[in-house]
Formats: sequence, C-alpha cells, structure tokens
Amino acid sequence: MIDHQFYTMGPAIPLSELAHKLGTALEIEGAGDDIIEWPAALGNSQPGCVTFFSDKRRKGQLVTANATACLTTEKLAPLVAETGMIPLILENPRASFARITGDMVNEGSAGKPEGKISSGATIHPSASIGDGVSIGSGTVVGAFCVIESGVSVGVNCEIEPFVHVSFAHIGDGCHIKSGAVIGGSGFGMAEDKSGIFNIPHIGRVMIRDRVQIGSKSCVDRGQLGDTVICDDVKIDNLVQIAHNVSIGEGTMIAAQVGISGSCVIGKKCLLAGRASIADHINIGDGAILAAHAGVMTDVPAGEMHSGIPAMPIREHMRSVATLKKLSKK
Amino acid sequence: MIDHQFYTMGPAIPLSELAHKLGTALEIEGAGDDIIEWPAALGNSQPGCVTFFSDKRRKGQLVTANATACLTTEKLAPLVAETGMIPLILENPRASFARITGDMVNEGSAGKPEGKISSGATIHPSASIGDGVSIGSGTVVGAFCVIESGVSVGVNCEIEPFVHVSFAHIGDGCHIKSGAVIGGSGFGMAEDKSGIFNIPHIGRVMIRDRVQIGSKSCVDRGQLGDTVICDDVKIDNLVQIAHNVSIGEGTMIAAQVGISGSCVIGKKCLLAGRASIADHINIGDGAILAAHAGVMTDVPAGEMHSGIPAMPIREHMRSVATLKKLSKK
Amino acid sequence: MIDHQFYTMGPAIPLSELAHKLGTALEIEGAGDDIIEWPAALGNSQPGCVTFFSDKRRKGQLVTANATACLTTEKLAPLVAETGMIPLILENPRASFARITGDMVNEGSAGKPEGKISSGATIHPSASIGDGVSIGSGTVVGAFCVIESGVSVGVNCEIEPFVHVSFAHIGDGCHIKSGAVIGGSGFGMAEDKSGIFNIPHIGRVMIRDRVQIGSKSCVDRGQLGDTVICDDVKIDNLVQIAHNVSIGEGTMIAAQVGISGSCVIGKKCLLAGRASIADHINIGDGAILAAHAGVMTDVPAGEMHSGIPAMPIREHMRSVATLKKLSKK
Repeated sequence: MIDHQFYTMGPAIPLSELAHKLGTALEIEGAGDDIIEWPAALGNSQPGCVTFFSDKRRKGQLVTANATACLTTEKLAPLVAETGMIPLILENPRASFARITGDMVNEGSAGKPEGKISSGATIHPSASIGDGVSIGSGTVVGAFCVIESGVSVGVNCEIEPFVHVSFAHIGDGCHIKSGAVIGGSGFGMAEDKSGIFNIPHIGRVMIRDRVQIGSKSCVDRGQLGDTVICDDVKIDNLVQIAHNVSIGEGTMIAAQVGISGSCVIGKKCLLAGRASIADHINIGDGAILAAHAGVMTDVPAGEMHSGIPAMPIREHMRSVATLKKLSKK
Repeated sequence: MIDHQFYTMGPAIPLSELAHKLGTALEIEGAGDDIIEWPAALGNSQPGCVTFFSDKRRKGQLVTANATACLTTEKLAPLVAETGMIPLILENPRASFARITGDMVNEGSAGKPEGKISSGATIHPSASIGDGVSIGSGTVVGAFCVIESGVSVGVNCEIEPFVHVSFAHIGDGCHIKSGAVIGGSGFGMAEDKSGIFNIPHIGRVMIRDRVQIGSKSCVDRGQLGDTVICDDVKIDNLVQIAHNVSIGEGTMIAAQVGISGSCVIGKKCLLAGRASIADHINIGDGAILAAHAGVMTDVPAGEMHSGIPAMPIREHMRSVATLKKLSKK
Repeated sequence: MIDHQFYTMGPAIPLSELAHKLGTALEIEGAGDDIIEWPAALGNSQPGCVTFFSDKRRKGQLVTANATACLTTEKLAPLVAETGMIPLILENPRASFARITGDMVNEGSAGKPEGKISSGATIHPSASIGDGVSIGSGTVVGAFCVIESGVSVGVNCEIEPFVHVSFAHIGDGCHIKSGAVIGGSGFGMAEDKSGIFNIPHIGRVMIRDRVQIGSKSCVDRGQLGDTVICDDVKIDNLVQIAHNVSIGEGTMIAAQVGISGSCVIGKKCLLAGRASIADHINIGDGAILAAHAGVMTDVPAGEMHSGIPAMPIREHMRSVATLKKLSKK
C-alpha cells in the first residue's frame, strides 16, 4: 500500500534474492520463487509483503500479519512460522528491514503525480508548489509556503505563510498556521555494522476536514502506514506529533504538547498544555490529560489523568496533598 | 476599540436586530432601538458595546462593565441586570458572542491602512510587506519575512529571516529572531449546533521598546483586547505566549516557557526554562519561576515558586527532601 | 581565536587604554603597554587576551586561564593575581566584559569571506546564499533557505526548506530538517547603568558529520567559544540547544528536549522526549535521561536519571512507589 503520488516501488523480487541480499539462508524449501513486492508493517502485512517481528511485546499483531516473509530473530522464528509467514532469521531484523525498505521504495512518484489546482484557489506568487499538487477552490496558500510534489489540499483551507507540507493529503476547511511542518520523516534510528542510520519513512500524513494545526507545530508522516488526524481536531502552537500517531475526531490539543510515535488518541479528548505521551500509548475517547501530564500508561475513555508519571487525577491530587502534609511535620 | 489598521467594523445595528439574529427575545421594553456598534470584553465594555458574561468566576469584571447589551445565561441574568446592562439570555452566551463577533468585525482595513517605510530602513528584497506597513529608520528586515498589512515597526529594530508579524505594533530597538510568529490568532474554540469553531480574534499584539523575541517563539494576538509585551522584556526560543497575556517591563523568559491565555506577568520577573503558567494567573513583580515550574495559582511579588504544581520554593524543597527521606526507609 | 569568516577584530589596544575605557585604574605598574588583542573565555584565554572572572564557582577554570588581563571584582582580584593575569577591578565584570567584547569584535568578515559552491550541489533558486559560503558536492539546499555569509556545509547534506544557518560550519552527510535555526545568538543578558543588553556572541556552531537536526529546532552559537555537535548526533523536532553546549558522538535527542548553556553531553547518550538540563551540567557517556527528566546535577556515565528534579531512576521509582503507598493510607 504505497501511495504512488509520493513513492516509487522498485521491481518485485523473488524471496531467494531477498534472502541473499540480507545475507541469510532461506530455510524453507521451495519458497524461493515467492515474489516480494513491498515492505509493510507487521499488523497490516499481506501476501507479497515482507515485514519484520523483533519485539515480543508486538506479538498481538501476529494475528493479522499475513506477509509472505517476515524478518525475525532465531528465538522468535517459531512464532512467525506458526502464522504461515516464512521467517528469515537475522541478527537485527529491525535494521535489516529498514535497509530493505530503503532498497525497495524510493521517494518521488514514478510517473508524473496527478494534481489539479482549482482556479478558485488563491496562491501567493512566492509559494513553491511541486508537481502534481491538488489545491481546492476557496483555499488560500500564503507567502513562502512549500507544498511538495503529490500533496493534495481540499477546498476552503487557509494555509498561512511558511507552512511546509509533504507526503500528505489535507481535507476541506483546514487551517494550517504559520510555519507548521506536515509530513517530515519521523525520528527513528537503526544501527548496523555501517553505523547509525535513519529508518526510511514511506507513509503519509492524512488530515481530515476542519482540522487546525498551530504555528511551528510538527506532524511527522508514518513510517510504513499513516499518521492520521481526524475531523475537527484542533492543535495549538509548538506541538510535536510523531510518526504513526492517530488522533480521533474533535480532540483538542493545547500548546507545547508532545505525542510520541504510534499513539492512538480517541475522539473528543482534551490534551492540556505541555501534556506528553510516551510511544504506543492508547488514550480513550473523551479522556482528559491535565497540563504537564506525562503519560506512560494507557488512559481509559472518559478518565482524567494528571502528574508525571500521569495517574487518575484524584490519585494525583491525593499524592500532592499527602506529600504536603508529610512535609509540614 | 477596534484598530482600523487591521479590522473593519460592520454597520451598527439596533439591539432588536441583534436579539433577532441571536434567536432570543429582548425582555426589556423600549431598549430595541439602542445601537450596538462593536463587541468588547466584559471588563472594558462601554455604551454601544455588546459583551458576554457566562462564567461566575469573572464576576469581578462586572464592576467596570458598561456595555449596552450583555449575552448571558438565565441564571446569571439578574447579576447583569443589576449593572444596568441589558441581558440577552442564551443557552451558550460564549459561543453566541463568538458568532456575533465574527459577524460584526472583519479582518482587513476598510480603507487603505496608513503606513510609511522609512528611507533609512533596510528591507531584504525577498521580504513580503503588506499595505500600510510602517517601518522606522535603522530597522533591518531579513530575508523571507512576512509583515502583514497595517503593522508598524519602530526604529532600530532587527527582524531576522522568516519572521511573521500580523495585527501588531512593535516599538523601537526590538530584536525579533529567526522564525518568530507575532500576531497569530489565539487558541480558543467554541461549539454550537453547527460544530466546533474558532473564536474570532479582533485584538492585537503590542510590543514596546527593546523587546527581544526568540527564534520560533509564538505570540498570539488578543481576542478582544491586546497581548502586551512591555519595555525590555527578553524572551528566548520556542516560547509560547497565548492571547491576552501581559508581560511587565524587564521580565526575562527562558526557552520553551509556555504562558496560557490572559496571564498577567509583572515587571522584572524571571521565568526559567520550561516554566509554564495556566490561564488567568497573575505573577507579581520580581517573582521568579524555577525551571519546569507548573504554575496553577497566583504568585505574589518577589516570591520564587517551583515544582509541578508550583509552590513556594522552600516548600517544594522540603517536599523533595521529605519524599527522599521517606523513600529510603 | 575569532573565526575571520564571521567576525572582524578591531585594532589591538594597550592595556592602559582598555582600563581607561572601562573607567578603572591599572594597579600594576608597567603593565599599561601590554597589548590586548581579543576577548576570550576564562579557561581558554591566552596572552593577548582579556577575560573575566566573577563567579567563584568557575574557580577551576583559573588553572588554564592565561590571559593578559582579567576583569574581576575586588574580592576575587587576589585569586586572579595569583595566576599571573593582571586583574582589572570592576563593579560588574561580566557586564563590562560584554561591553568590551562588543567594542573589540564586529559581526561580518573584514575582507571577503572565502567560499566555494560545488557544481555538484543542488541549490533551490529561491534560497538566499550569503557571500563566501561553501557548499559541498551532493548537498541539496531547499526552498527559502537562508545560508548566511561565511558558512560552510560539507558534501551530501540535505538542508530542507526554511533552514537558517549562520556562524556555523556543518560537516558531511548531515540532515537539517525544515525550519531549523542554527547559529542564532544565545540568550544571555547583562545589565549596567545603560540598561539590560544582550551579551555579544562571537562564537560559532560546529556540526560534525552525519548529524541530524529536527524541524524547528534551535542551536545557538557559542558566546566566546563554540557550540559543538559531534558525529552521528541525531536530534528530533522542537529541541532547544543553548550556547556553548557540547554533544558527544552518537547521542540521540528526542523531541522538545531543552539543553541550557554550557552543558557537556557525552557520547552515545539518550535524551528521551521533553528531558531538560540546567546550565553547566555534565552528562557522562552512555547516560540516559528518561522522558521529562529535569536534570539539575551531573549525571555519571552509564547512569539513567529520571524525575524532576532528576535522580537515579531506581531512586525515582522508589519515590513514586513510596508516595503512592503513603497516599493510600
């Protein structure tokens, strides 16, 4: 599921060639002719995909994993084999997968990306608009914006000056404020014998309708899948939203909040100023994070958490009161 | 008091028409012909204004409230009536007031805003300068700056590249660093049956003399009044200053500080790195906020507060020491 | 050691003239003809330099201090005299030194700075490139970048749009992301009878090879020396790195981290999201700062610190558990 507006896939290769490239043996006979087309995340993988499994905590994703091949460790290989995927055993599956991703997928559309700029759009003459960009009627693009190749922006959006959009599709009625960055590569590193390197990001940012992104806020694109911001999400200034985050409808996010990779935030949540969330955390619908909350565990729907580390607010208030009392003695 | 450099007021309307628009009844006879000219904040409202009162905690502002009409709830209407203002009863006065504000005031000067660029100013040829901008002698405006229509900048200022200024008046000798954003709309949402929407901002940013604003810092404009930054205030990088904040002379604000809406910071205060302040908080003259302080209550003049939630620093140090001692047992 | 690509030194002056300018007496006879060439930091000062010593906690730097003259207080003058440097006694040595620095060194190269843009570099036509800039082969400079006079960038770098670089030398294979600011003046104020003023910054930013700087991150240049970011350091978005910080090889810094002035971070450290460090702190090789850690004391090599104020993580976890237990009673 590569978006051809943004990326080009290299030629499909037989599994035997992939194994050879990775410097590993193919331990299952007769599978060498299976064709590998693209790299995918474990939980979303399909026949024709290569994926990887290196962290036992992600075991739950094996249920929906259906790749042809799965890079893994010797220890985890039996779990992979049980799913019917062909395990390829490697010392560092994550780094090897990152290298393979970079080999199989390139940034930039293969042909010409398709786009159409509406005659009803108002684009500042200084803005830099890439090939195949779509911009809808009633949308205003400000001075010195950079809208990279293949991006689409819906109707009636306001894109303030200095906004940078790449690898993203933006819906209708959105307001992107001065100097926001949408679609940068996420912060993910791997290390192999050649050194530390950036994990290639081949995903997108999907921004639905009536979304607001504040000044100087950053929304990174997904690594393999998408970073998704649903309808009516409102985000204030200087907020960091990492790769593969998903934010539900109507959620409000105050200034200087930070959301780490792969978090899932529900609908109608409220994240007060400076709250932050560790990676892979789920925040249920309607949950509230108090100002400064440092969330390290899932927050159930409707609950309000506070404190660093964050806990239910009553518990946090009791902690604060207890410590105050004890300190007075 | 709308600044005609930035905004245009629609025609004044009789109170009866306003009530009709809002879908509410005018319960005081004979008042329908009173003329409503502009929307104003409760505490600064004058005859000819419409304002709103929906939060009992703001009751103190009724003392100086002198609008012709005041949107309010059924419950609070008697308090409004006592002041002599005419109450208009609504389910959600804040949202209705926001809608009215958007109806009565438009962004953009009605005529041509007045401005004069001094021959002694140095403006990079790539900078985008709106109509009616004033720039004083000795001021340098860097590459790719966007100075929006109606803005004034005094003499001997240094405006570094990528600075975006709108709805603002800047004094003399200021230094605005790379990529700062001054005058964006504040983060305020209201919700009515049509959905969540941005509360219109019809105020300004007033920056006095010798002020420094750091790189990528954001100073939002006031909603109805002004965000005010007094003489000799020095602000570091990546700082968020929300709408309607006021900062007194000579106050220093370190990197990554966040100040929420409507805070009043005194003179010669010191806000250390990463300190943050909840909305509507007062910080007295000469107060110090330690690094990371999360301020939820007013800080008296001259005091030093620390911790999250912030408290007098001695109390905080005692808390830290107490917990350390108890944990060792 | 002024970098002539960026700064011009005024004429060398005899010590007697310097003392006269500062309004102080030269108490050591015969020294008035000694020549002062440039201002330097205490620990790096050499014959021909003027430096200052006003904070007893920096006493350790006297060991390597070897300036001709040293601005100091009456109380500290004996310590200065012991080193063989000539003490100049002032009420506010730091402010006087800042004034002198501004007098002796000017921004901008005296001649034409030397630079060469490789024919193998790809520079977006909208980018603003100063005089004497060097850009290596294979380096891509994006739209609306500002590369100020005298800067050098190595080979195979990716400089995304809206990046601002000044007073900096960047190595090979670096990736500077959208809207990063490198080389701004640090946040340092002094006050004398003329008021509060910025301390002049006459240092640089030195970025070695394969460094990544995230979107909207700010790296301030050194005041007298350099801010140094070593090979393979990877920095995420919205990070603040203050003047004179040094970061060792392979260290990773997550989003929204803040590092105050003059910190020394070791090799292969990990600074998790939102961690922050007070000024003049040392972080040993391989140390880990947990998310939100607020570091106020040195962290030994290999240790993991957590909490605000930060402490060894086991201690922090014990604190959290203890308070939880006590609150339940």
